[in-house]
Amino acid sequence: MTYCVGILTHQGLVMASDSRTNAGYDQVNLCRKMHTFVEPGERSFCILTSGSLSLTQSVITLLRDEFDAGEGLAKARNFYAAARAVGECVRRVAELDRSALERDEFNFNINLLLGGQIKGEAPQLYLIYPQGNPLSVTRDSPYMQIGEVKYGRPILDRGIEAGATTLEVAAMYALLSFDATMRSNVTVGPPIEMLLYENDALEFDRYRRFKADDPELNVIHRQWERSLRRAVEELPAITFKACLPDTP
Amino acid sequence: MTYCVGILTHQGLVMASDSRTNAGYDQVNLCRKMHTFVEPGERSFCILTSGSLSLTQSVITLLRDEFDAGEGLAKARNFYAAARAVGECVRRVAELDRSALERDEFNFNINLLLGGQIKGEAPQLYLIYPQGNPLSVTRDSPYMQIGEVKYGRPILDRGIEAGATTLEVAAMYALLSFDATMRSNVTVGPPIEMLLYENDALEFDRYRRFKADDPELNVIHRQWERSLRRAVEELPAITFKACLPDTP
Repeated sequence: MTYCVGILTHQGLVMASDSRTNAGYDQVNLCRKMHTFVEPGERSFCILTSGSLSLTQSVITLLRDEFDAGEGLAKARNFYAAARAVGECVRRVAELDRSALERDEFNFNINLLLGGQIKGEAPQLYLIYPQGNPLSVTRDSPYMQIGEVKYGRPILDRGIEAGATTLEVAAMYALLSFDATMRSNVTVGPPIEMLLYENDALEFDRYRRFKADDPELNVIHRQWERSLRRAVEELPAITFKACLPDTP
Repeated sequence: MTYCVGILTHQGLVMASDSRTNAGYDQVNLCRKMHTFVEPGERSFCILTSGSLSLTQSVITLLRDEFDAGEGLAKARNFYAAARAVGECVRRVAELDRSALERDEFNFNINLLLGGQIKGEAPQLYLIYPQGNPLSVTRDSPYMQIGEVKYGRPILDRGIEAGATTLEVAAMYALLSFDATMRSNVTVGPPIEMLLYENDALEFDRYRRFKADDPELNVIHRQWERSLRRAVEELPAITFKACLPDTP
Protein backbone atom coordinates (compact mmCIF):
# COMPACT_ATOMS: atom_id res chain seq x y z
CA MET A 1 0.00 0.00 0.00
CA THR A 2 0.94 3.63 -0.34
CA TYR A 3 -0.02 6.92 1.20
CA CYS A 4 0.65 10.26 -0.49
CA VAL A 5 -0.83 13.68 0.17
CA GLY A 6 -0.59 17.08 -1.47
CA ILE A 7 -1.84 20.30 0.15
CA LEU A 8 -2.23 23.61 -1.67
CA THR A 9 -2.06 26.60 0.67
CA HIS A 10 -2.07 30.32 -0.06
CA GLN A 11 1.67 30.28 0.57
CA GLY A 12 2.58 27.24 -1.51
CA LEU A 13 2.48 23.47 -1.69
CA VAL A 14 3.18 20.56 0.63
CA MET A 15 3.87 17.21 -1.07
CA ALA A 16 4.52 14.08 0.98
CA SER A 17 4.80 10.34 0.36
CA ASP A 18 5.62 7.15 2.23
CA SER A 19 8.18 4.63 0.96
CA ARG A 20 6.75 1.17 1.47
CA THR A 21 5.89 -1.04 -1.46
CA ASN A 22 4.61 -4.57 -1.28
CA ALA A 23 3.78 -7.11 -3.93
CA GLY A 24 1.65 -9.44 -1.86
CA TYR A 25 2.33 -9.94 1.81
CA ASP A 26 5.67 -11.65 1.48
CA GLN A 27 7.61 -8.98 -0.32
CA VAL A 28 7.92 -5.57 1.28
CA ASN A 29 10.49 -3.16 -0.02
CA LEU A 30 11.41 0.45 0.13
CA CYS A 31 10.81 2.68 -2.81
CA ARG A 32 10.61 6.39 -3.40
CA LYS A 33 7.27 7.60 -4.68
CA MET A 34 8.26 11.24 -5.05
CA HIS A 35 9.67 12.45 -8.37
CA THR A 36 10.68 15.97 -9.33
CA PHE A 37 11.07 17.69 -12.69
CA VAL A 38 12.66 21.12 -12.45
CA GLU A 39 13.79 23.85 -14.81
CA PRO A 40 15.00 26.39 -12.21
CA GLY A 41 13.31 29.77 -12.44
CA GLU A 42 10.89 28.47 -15.09
CA ARG A 43 8.92 25.45 -13.89
CA SER A 44 8.92 22.95 -11.04
CA PHE A 45 6.87 19.76 -10.84
CA CYS A 46 6.59 17.17 -8.10
CA ILE A 47 4.81 13.88 -8.83
CA LEU A 48 3.67 11.39 -6.17
CA THR A 49 2.57 7.93 -7.27
CA SER A 50 0.38 5.11 -5.96
CA GLY A 51 -0.42 1.71 -7.42
CA SER A 52 1.66 -0.99 -9.09
CA LEU A 53 5.30 0.09 -9.00
CA SER A 54 5.93 -1.50 -12.40
CA LEU A 55 3.31 0.77 -13.94
CA THR A 56 4.18 4.00 -12.12
CA GLN A 57 7.88 3.45 -12.92
CA SER A 58 6.97 3.21 -16.59
CA VAL A 59 4.97 6.45 -16.42
CA ILE A 60 7.85 8.27 -14.73
CA THR A 61 10.34 6.84 -17.24
CA LEU A 62 8.27 8.12 -20.15
CA LEU A 63 7.84 11.53 -18.50
CA ARG A 64 11.57 11.76 -17.75
CA ASP A 65 12.49 10.87 -21.34
CA GLU A 66 10.12 13.54 -22.64
CA PHE A 67 11.37 16.10 -20.13
CA ASP A 68 15.03 15.49 -20.97
CA ALA A 69 14.15 15.92 -24.65
CA GLY A 70 12.44 19.27 -23.95
CA GLU A 71 8.99 17.77 -24.50
CA GLY A 72 6.03 16.94 -22.22
CA LEU A 73 6.37 18.62 -18.82
CA ALA A 74 9.27 20.71 -20.16
CA LYS A 75 7.10 22.22 -22.86
CA ALA A 76 3.58 22.35 -21.42
CA ARG A 77 2.33 25.93 -21.90
CA ASN A 78 0.36 25.93 -18.63
CA PHE A 79 -0.28 23.70 -15.65
CA TYR A 80 -3.43 22.18 -17.10
CA ALA A 81 -1.43 21.12 -20.15
CA ALA A 82 1.18 19.65 -17.80
CA ALA A 83 -1.52 17.60 -16.06
CA ARG A 84 -2.65 16.45 -19.52
CA ALA A 85 0.94 15.50 -20.42
CA VAL A 86 1.09 13.26 -17.34
CA GLY A 87 -2.31 11.78 -18.20
CA GLU A 88 -1.04 11.10 -21.72
CA CYS A 89 1.84 9.02 -20.33
CA VAL A 90 -0.58 7.13 -18.06
CA ARG A 91 -2.58 6.29 -21.20
CA ARG A 92 0.52 5.18 -23.09
CA VAL A 93 1.41 2.77 -20.28
CA ALA A 94 -2.21 1.59 -20.18
CA GLU A 95 -1.95 0.81 -23.87
CA LEU A 96 1.25 -1.13 -23.27
CA ASP A 97 0.18 -3.16 -20.22
CA ARG A 98 -3.51 -2.97 -19.43
CA SER A 99 -4.85 -5.88 -21.47
CA ALA A 100 -2.08 -8.24 -20.35
CA LEU A 101 -2.77 -7.36 -16.72
CA GLU A 102 -6.53 -7.70 -17.03
CA ARG A 103 -6.16 -11.10 -18.65
CA ASP A 104 -4.74 -12.24 -15.29
CA GLU A 105 -7.31 -10.22 -13.32
CA PHE A 106 -5.02 -7.42 -12.19
CA ASN A 107 -6.48 -3.92 -12.30
CA PHE A 108 -4.78 -1.07 -14.04
CA ASN A 109 -5.07 1.13 -10.99
CA ILE A 110 -2.46 3.84 -10.63
CA ASN A 111 -3.04 7.35 -9.36
CA LEU A 112 -0.69 10.31 -9.41
CA LEU A 113 -0.54 13.68 -7.72
CA LEU A 114 1.04 16.48 -9.73
CA GLY A 115 1.94 19.64 -7.82
CA GLY A 116 4.10 22.58 -8.77
CA GLN A 117 4.18 25.81 -10.70
CA ILE A 118 4.89 27.21 -14.14
CA LYS A 119 6.25 30.75 -14.23
CA GLY A 120 3.42 33.25 -14.69
CA GLU A 121 0.78 31.06 -13.07
CA ALA A 122 -0.08 30.31 -9.45
CA PRO A 123 1.02 26.95 -7.99
CA GLN A 124 -1.40 24.13 -8.69
CA LEU A 125 -2.20 20.61 -7.59
CA TYR A 126 -3.83 17.89 -9.69
CA LEU A 127 -4.84 14.28 -9.26
CA ILE A 128 -4.36 12.14 -12.38
CA TYR A 129 -6.71 9.15 -12.48
CA PRO A 130 -5.83 5.68 -13.86
CA GLN A 131 -7.77 6.65 -17.00
CA GLY A 132 -5.50 9.67 -17.49
CA ASN A 133 -8.04 12.40 -16.75
CA PRO A 134 -7.01 15.20 -14.39
CA LEU A 135 -8.78 16.68 -11.35
CA SER A 136 -7.68 19.93 -9.74
CA VAL A 137 -7.99 20.84 -6.06
CA THR A 138 -10.62 23.46 -5.33
CA ARG A 139 -10.75 26.19 -2.73
CA ASP A 140 -13.10 24.09 -0.62
CA SER A 141 -10.98 20.95 -0.95
CA PRO A 142 -7.40 22.21 -0.85
CA TYR A 143 -5.75 18.82 -0.35
CA MET A 144 -5.64 15.51 -2.20
CA GLN A 145 -4.68 12.04 -1.13
CA ILE A 146 -3.89 8.82 -2.98
CA GLY A 147 -3.41 5.26 -1.70
CA GLU A 148 -4.55 4.38 1.82
CA VAL A 149 -6.43 7.64 2.32
CA LYS A 150 -8.95 7.14 5.10
CA TYR A 151 -6.92 6.86 8.32
CA GLY A 152 -5.12 10.12 7.64
CA ARG A 153 -8.09 12.13 6.51
CA PRO A 154 -9.85 13.28 9.72
CA ILE A 155 -6.84 15.28 10.92
CA LEU A 156 -6.63 17.04 7.53
CA ASP A 157 -10.37 17.73 7.54
CA ARG A 158 -10.09 19.31 10.97
CA GLY A 159 -6.91 21.24 10.41
CA ILE A 160 -6.54 22.50 6.84
CA GLU A 161 -8.32 25.78 6.15
CA ALA A 162 -7.94 27.23 2.67
CA GLY A 163 -6.47 30.72 2.83
CA ALA A 164 -5.60 30.46 6.54
CA THR A 165 -3.33 27.49 7.17
CA THR A 166 0.31 28.46 6.68
CA LEU A 167 2.72 26.33 4.67
CA GLU A 168 4.61 25.20 7.79
CA VAL A 169 1.43 24.29 9.66
CA ALA A 170 0.12 22.43 6.60
CA ALA A 171 3.37 20.44 6.60
CA MET A 172 2.74 19.53 10.22
CA TYR A 173 -0.81 18.36 9.42
CA ALA A 174 0.59 16.27 6.57
CA LEU A 175 3.07 14.69 8.96
CA LEU A 176 0.35 13.96 11.53
CA SER A 177 -1.77 12.48 8.75
CA PHE A 178 1.10 10.09 7.99
CA ASP A 179 1.55 9.37 11.68
CA ALA A 180 -2.12 8.35 11.97
CA THR A 181 -1.95 6.22 8.82
CA MET A 182 1.22 4.38 9.80
CA ARG A 183 -0.16 3.81 13.31
CA SER A 184 -3.21 2.04 11.91
CA ASN A 185 -1.90 0.39 8.73
CA VAL A 186 1.36 -1.50 8.66
CA THR A 187 1.59 -1.45 4.85
CA VAL A 188 2.24 2.31 4.90
CA GLY A 189 5.73 2.96 6.21
CA PRO A 190 8.73 5.25 6.49
CA PRO A 191 10.80 6.90 5.26
CA ILE A 192 8.36 9.75 4.75
CA GLU A 193 9.50 12.18 2.12
CA MET A 194 8.26 15.73 2.37
CA LEU A 195 8.73 18.72 0.15
CA LEU A 196 7.71 22.31 0.80
CA TYR A 197 7.24 24.57 -2.17
CA GLU A 198 6.91 28.31 -1.61
CA ASN A 199 4.94 30.38 -4.13
CA ASP A 200 7.12 31.58 -7.03
CA ALA A 201 10.27 29.76 -5.86
CA LEU A 202 10.26 27.82 -9.15
CA GLU A 203 12.65 25.30 -7.65
CA PHE A 204 12.58 22.80 -4.78
CA ASP A 205 14.83 23.75 -1.92
CA ARG A 206 12.98 22.59 1.19
CA TYR A 207 13.01 18.83 1.53
CA ARG A 208 13.01 16.36 4.36
CA ARG A 209 13.22 12.58 4.55
CA PHE A 210 12.04 11.10 7.86
CA LYS A 211 13.29 7.59 8.61
CA ALA A 212 11.49 5.52 11.26
CA ASP A 213 14.06 6.47 13.91
CA ASP A 214 14.21 10.17 13.00
CA PRO A 215 14.61 11.93 16.38
CA GLU A 216 12.56 14.97 15.31
CA LEU A 217 9.72 12.74 14.03
CA ASN A 218 9.76 10.78 17.28
CA VAL A 219 9.57 13.93 19.40
CA ILE A 220 6.60 15.12 17.34
CA HIS A 221 4.94 11.69 17.58
CA ARG A 222 5.35 11.46 21.36
CA GLN A 223 4.31 15.04 22.06
CA TRP A 224 1.28 14.62 19.79
CA GLU A 225 0.10 11.45 21.54
CA ARG A 226 0.58 13.11 24.94
CA SER A 227 -1.37 16.18 23.81
CA LEU A 228 -4.22 14.04 22.46
CA ARG A 229 -4.52 12.07 25.67
CA ARG A 230 -4.46 15.23 27.76
CA ALA A 231 -7.07 16.82 25.47
CA VAL A 232 -9.33 13.78 25.93
CA GLU A 233 -8.95 13.95 29.69
CA GLU A 234 -9.91 17.61 29.67
CA LEU A 235 -13.19 17.03 27.81
CA PRO A 236 -16.37 17.34 29.88
CA ALA A 237 -17.66 13.95 31.07
CA ILE A 238 -20.53 12.39 29.16
CA THR A 239 -23.73 12.08 31.16
CA PHE A 240 -25.72 8.90 30.75
CA LYS A 241 -29.34 8.11 31.41
CA ALA A 242 -30.69 5.11 33.25
CA CYS A 243 -33.33 4.12 30.72
CA LEU A 244 -32.90 2.44 27.37
CA PRO A 245 -35.34 3.25 24.59
CA ASP A 246 -37.87 0.57 23.72
CA THR A 247 -36.69 -2.04 21.27
CA PRO A 248 -36.64 -1.89 18.36
CA MET B 1 -22.95 3.20 5.39
CA THR B 2 -22.69 2.43 9.08
CA TYR B 3 -20.20 2.82 11.86
CA CYS B 4 -20.30 0.79 15.06
CA VAL B 5 -17.65 0.21 17.69
CA GLY B 6 -17.36 -1.94 20.79
CA ILE B 7 -14.62 -1.52 23.40
CA LEU B 8 -13.87 -4.02 26.17
CA THR B 9 -12.14 -2.43 29.18
CA HIS B 10 -11.18 -3.88 32.55
CA GLN B 11 -14.22 -2.07 33.98
CA GLY B 12 -16.77 -3.07 31.38
CA LEU B 13 -17.98 -2.49 27.84
CA VAL B 14 -18.69 0.48 25.59
CA MET B 15 -21.03 -0.17 22.66
CA ALA B 16 -21.86 2.61 20.17
CA SER B 17 -23.56 2.90 16.79
CA ASP B 18 -24.61 5.53 14.30
CA SER B 19 -28.14 5.71 12.89
CA ARG B 20 -27.85 6.46 9.18
CA THR B 21 -28.94 3.95 6.59
CA ASN B 22 -28.92 4.44 2.88
CA ALA B 23 -30.05 2.29 0.01
CA GLY B 24 -28.22 4.03 -2.78
CA TYR B 25 -27.58 7.75 -2.69
CA ASP B 26 -31.14 8.88 -2.98
CA GLN B 27 -32.64 7.25 0.05
CA VAL B 28 -31.18 8.10 3.42
CA ASN B 29 -33.11 7.18 6.52
CA LEU B 30 -32.63 6.87 10.21
CA CYS B 31 -32.46 3.49 11.79
CA ARG B 32 -31.29 2.10 15.12
CA LYS B 33 -28.49 -0.41 14.84
CA MET B 34 -28.30 -1.20 18.55
CA HIS B 35 -30.35 -4.06 19.95
CA THR B 36 -30.43 -5.36 23.50
CA PHE B 37 -31.46 -8.71 24.98
CA VAL B 38 -31.61 -8.69 28.76
CA GLU B 39 -32.57 -11.08 31.52
CA PRO B 40 -31.82 -8.83 34.54
CA GLY B 41 -29.34 -10.31 36.99
CA GLU B 42 -28.65 -13.23 34.67
CA ARG B 43 -27.49 -12.14 31.20
CA SER B 44 -27.25 -8.97 29.12
CA PHE B 45 -26.45 -8.76 25.41
CA CYS B 46 -26.04 -5.79 23.12
CA ILE B 47 -25.86 -6.34 19.36
CA LEU B 48 -24.69 -3.73 16.84
CA THR B 49 -25.28 -4.37 13.14
CA SER B 50 -23.82 -3.28 9.81
CA GLY B 51 -24.81 -4.17 6.25
CA SER B 52 -28.14 -4.47 4.46
CA LEU B 53 -30.90 -3.47 6.85
CA SER B 54 -33.24 -6.07 5.38
CA LEU B 55 -30.79 -8.81 6.34
CA THR B 56 -29.81 -7.53 9.79
CA GLN B 57 -33.48 -6.98 10.64
CA SER B 58 -34.15 -10.61 9.79
CA VAL B 59 -31.28 -11.75 12.02
CA ILE B 60 -32.55 -9.65 14.93
CA THR B 61 -36.12 -10.88 14.38
CA LEU B 62 -34.99 -14.51 14.54
CA LEU B 63 -32.87 -13.82 17.63
CA ARG B 64 -35.75 -12.00 19.34
CA ASP B 65 -38.17 -14.83 18.59
CA GLU B 66 -35.71 -17.35 20.04
CA PHE B 67 -35.02 -15.17 23.07
CA ASP B 68 -38.70 -14.67 23.83
CA ALA B 69 -39.18 -18.43 23.62
CA GLY B 70 -36.35 -19.03 26.11
CA GLU B 71 -34.04 -20.32 23.37
CA GLY B 72 -30.89 -18.97 21.63
CA LEU B 73 -29.37 -16.09 23.57
CA ALA B 74 -31.71 -16.83 26.50
CA LYS B 75 -30.33 -20.35 26.88
CA ALA B 76 -26.68 -20.16 25.73
CA ARG B 77 -24.62 -21.75 28.52
CA ASN B 78 -21.69 -19.37 28.03
CA PHE B 79 -20.78 -16.35 25.94
CA TYR B 80 -19.08 -18.36 23.24
CA ALA B 81 -22.30 -20.33 22.80
CA ALA B 82 -24.16 -17.00 22.62
CA ALA B 83 -21.85 -15.84 19.81
CA ARG B 84 -22.52 -19.15 18.05
CA ALA B 85 -26.29 -18.63 18.50
CA VAL B 86 -26.01 -15.26 16.74
CA GLY B 87 -23.87 -16.84 13.99
CA GLU B 88 -26.50 -19.54 13.59
CA CYS B 89 -29.18 -16.90 12.89
CA VAL B 90 -26.86 -15.19 10.40
CA ARG B 91 -26.56 -18.54 8.61
CA ARG B 92 -30.33 -19.07 8.65
CA VAL B 93 -30.85 -15.69 6.97
CA ALA B 94 -28.06 -16.51 4.51
CA GLU B 95 -29.94 -19.67 3.62
CA LEU B 96 -33.12 -17.68 3.10
CA ASP B 97 -31.72 -14.78 1.06
CA ARG B 98 -28.15 -15.25 -0.13
CA SER B 99 -28.72 -16.97 -3.47
CA ALA B 100 -31.50 -14.55 -4.51
CA LEU B 101 -29.24 -11.60 -3.68
CA GLU B 102 -26.21 -13.02 -5.46
CA ARG B 103 -28.26 -13.69 -8.56
CA ASP B 104 -28.61 -9.89 -8.81
CA GLU B 105 -24.99 -9.31 -7.79
CA PHE B 106 -25.64 -8.12 -4.24
CA ASN B 107 -23.25 -9.43 -1.62
CA PHE B 108 -24.44 -11.10 1.53
CA ASN B 109 -22.31 -8.83 3.68
CA ILE B 110 -23.55 -8.23 7.20
CA ASN B 111 -21.39 -7.98 10.31
CA LEU B 112 -22.49 -7.89 13.92
CA LEU B 113 -20.86 -7.00 17.21
CA LEU B 114 -22.07 -8.93 20.24
CA GLY B 115 -21.10 -7.53 23.65
CA GLY B 116 -22.34 -8.33 27.09
CA GLN B 117 -22.07 -10.75 29.96
CA ILE B 118 -23.52 -14.01 31.26
CA LYS B 119 -23.56 -14.42 35.06
CA GLY B 120 -20.46 -16.28 36.26
CA GLU B 121 -18.28 -15.15 33.33
CA ALA B 122 -16.44 -11.91 32.58
CA PRO B 123 -17.94 -9.50 30.02
CA GLN B 124 -17.04 -10.36 26.43
CA LEU B 125 -17.11 -8.85 22.97
CA TYR B 126 -17.36 -10.74 19.69
CA LEU B 127 -17.53 -9.92 15.99
CA ILE B 128 -19.83 -12.19 13.99
CA TYR B 129 -18.81 -12.42 10.34
CA PRO B 130 -21.22 -12.69 7.37
CA GLN B 131 -20.41 -16.41 7.29
CA GLY B 132 -21.57 -16.77 10.90
CA ASN B 133 -18.18 -17.48 12.50
CA PRO B 134 -17.26 -15.53 15.65
CA LEU B 135 -14.09 -13.60 16.55
CA SER B 136 -13.39 -12.44 20.10
CA VAL B 137 -11.44 -9.34 21.09
CA THR B 138 -8.02 -10.05 22.54
CA ARG B 139 -6.04 -8.27 25.23
CA ASP B 140 -3.89 -6.64 22.54
CA SER B 141 -6.89 -5.60 20.43
CA PRO B 142 -9.55 -4.64 22.97
CA TYR B 143 -11.90 -2.96 20.52
CA MET B 144 -13.78 -3.92 17.37
CA GLN B 145 -15.35 -1.87 14.62
CA ILE B 146 -17.79 -2.66 11.82
CA GLY B 147 -18.91 -0.59 8.82
CA GLU B 148 -16.89 2.48 7.82
CA VAL B 149 -14.01 1.65 10.16
CA LYS B 150 -10.93 3.49 8.92
CA TYR B 151 -11.56 7.17 9.68
CA GLY B 152 -12.29 6.46 13.32
CA ARG B 153 -9.50 4.02 13.95
CA PRO B 154 -6.39 6.18 14.58
CA ILE B 155 -7.88 7.84 17.68
CA LEU B 156 -8.76 4.42 19.13
CA ASP B 157 -5.29 3.07 18.34
CA ARG B 158 -3.74 5.99 20.14
CA GLY B 159 -6.05 6.12 23.10
CA ILE B 160 -7.30 2.69 24.15
CA GLU B 161 -4.94 0.79 26.43
CA ALA B 162 -6.10 -2.60 27.65
CA GLY B 163 -6.15 -2.70 31.44
CA ALA B 164 -5.60 1.05 31.81
CA THR B 165 -8.32 2.98 29.98
CA THR B 166 -11.33 3.52 32.23
CA LEU B 167 -14.87 2.87 31.05
CA GLU B 168 -15.69 6.59 30.97
CA VAL B 169 -12.55 7.49 29.03
CA ALA B 170 -13.18 4.64 26.60
CA ALA B 171 -16.65 6.08 26.01
CA MET B 172 -15.03 9.43 25.19
CA TYR B 173 -12.66 7.78 22.70
CA ALA B 174 -15.62 6.03 21.09
CA LEU B 175 -17.40 9.38 20.77
CA LEU B 176 -14.31 11.02 19.23
CA SER B 177 -14.00 8.09 16.85
CA PHE B 178 -17.57 8.80 15.70
CA ASP B 179 -16.79 12.50 15.48
CA ALA B 180 -13.84 11.79 13.14
CA THR B 181 -15.88 9.38 11.01
CA MET B 182 -18.86 11.70 10.61
CA ARG B 183 -16.51 14.60 9.80
CA SER B 184 -14.99 12.69 6.88
CA ASN B 185 -17.88 10.53 5.66
CA VAL B 186 -21.36 11.92 5.16
CA THR B 187 -22.97 8.47 5.03
CA VAL B 188 -22.28 7.93 8.73
CA GLY B 189 -24.57 10.15 10.78
CA PRO B 190 -26.33 10.88 14.04
CA PRO B 191 -28.06 10.08 16.28
CA ILE B 192 -25.21 8.21 17.93
CA GLU B 193 -26.37 5.64 20.42
CA MET B 194 -24.02 4.72 23.23
CA LEU B 195 -24.30 2.20 25.99
CA LEU B 196 -21.96 1.73 28.95
CA TYR B 197 -21.94 -1.64 30.63
CA GLU B 198 -20.20 -2.02 34.00
CA ASN B 199 -18.77 -5.41 34.96
CA ASP B 200 -21.35 -7.64 36.68
CA ALA B 201 -24.22 -5.17 36.30
CA LEU B 202 -26.09 -7.80 34.27
CA GLU B 203 -28.43 -5.13 32.97
CA PHE B 204 -28.13 -1.99 30.85
CA ASP B 205 -28.70 1.19 32.82
CA ARG B 206 -26.30 3.73 31.28
CA TYR B 207 -27.44 4.81 27.85
CA ARG B 208 -27.18 7.96 25.76
CA ARG B 209 -28.54 9.00 22.39
CA PHE B 210 -26.77 11.98 20.81
CA LYS B 211 -28.72 13.81 18.13
CA ALA B 212 -26.85 16.11 15.73
CA ASP B 213 -27.74 19.18 17.78
CA ASP B 214 -27.01 17.62 21.17
CA PRO B 215 -25.52 20.50 23.20
CA GLU B 216 -23.13 18.24 25.12
CA LEU B 217 -21.89 16.61 21.91
CA ASN B 218 -21.34 20.02 20.34
CA VAL B 219 -19.34 21.26 23.33
CA ILE B 220 -17.15 18.16 23.13
CA HIS B 221 -16.75 18.56 19.34
CA ARG B 222 -15.74 22.21 19.57
CA GLN B 223 -13.41 21.80 22.52
CA TRP B 224 -11.79 18.80 20.81
CA GLU B 225 -11.12 20.68 17.57
CA ARG B 226 -9.72 23.64 19.54
CA SER B 227 -7.46 21.33 21.54
CA LEU B 228 -6.21 19.60 18.39
CA ARG B 229 -5.35 22.87 16.69
CA ARG B 230 -3.59 24.15 19.78
CA ALA B 231 -1.67 20.88 20.09
CA VAL B 232 -0.52 21.19 16.47
CA GLU B 233 0.63 24.75 17.05
CA GLU B 234 2.65 23.65 20.08
CA LEU B 235 4.59 20.98 18.16
CA PRO B 236 8.24 21.79 17.39
CA ALA B 237 8.70 23.14 13.86
CA ILE B 238 9.96 20.77 11.19
CA THR B 239 13.41 21.61 9.86
CA PHE B 240 13.93 21.25 6.14
CA LYS B 241 17.08 20.82 4.13
CA ALA B 242 18.00 22.68 0.98
CA CYS B 243 18.99 19.68 -1.11
CA LEU B 244 16.80 17.09 -2.74
CA PRO B 245 18.10 13.55 -3.11
CA ASP B 246 19.14 12.44 -6.56
CA THR B 247 16.36 11.12 -8.74
CA PRO B 248 15.18 8.45 -8.88
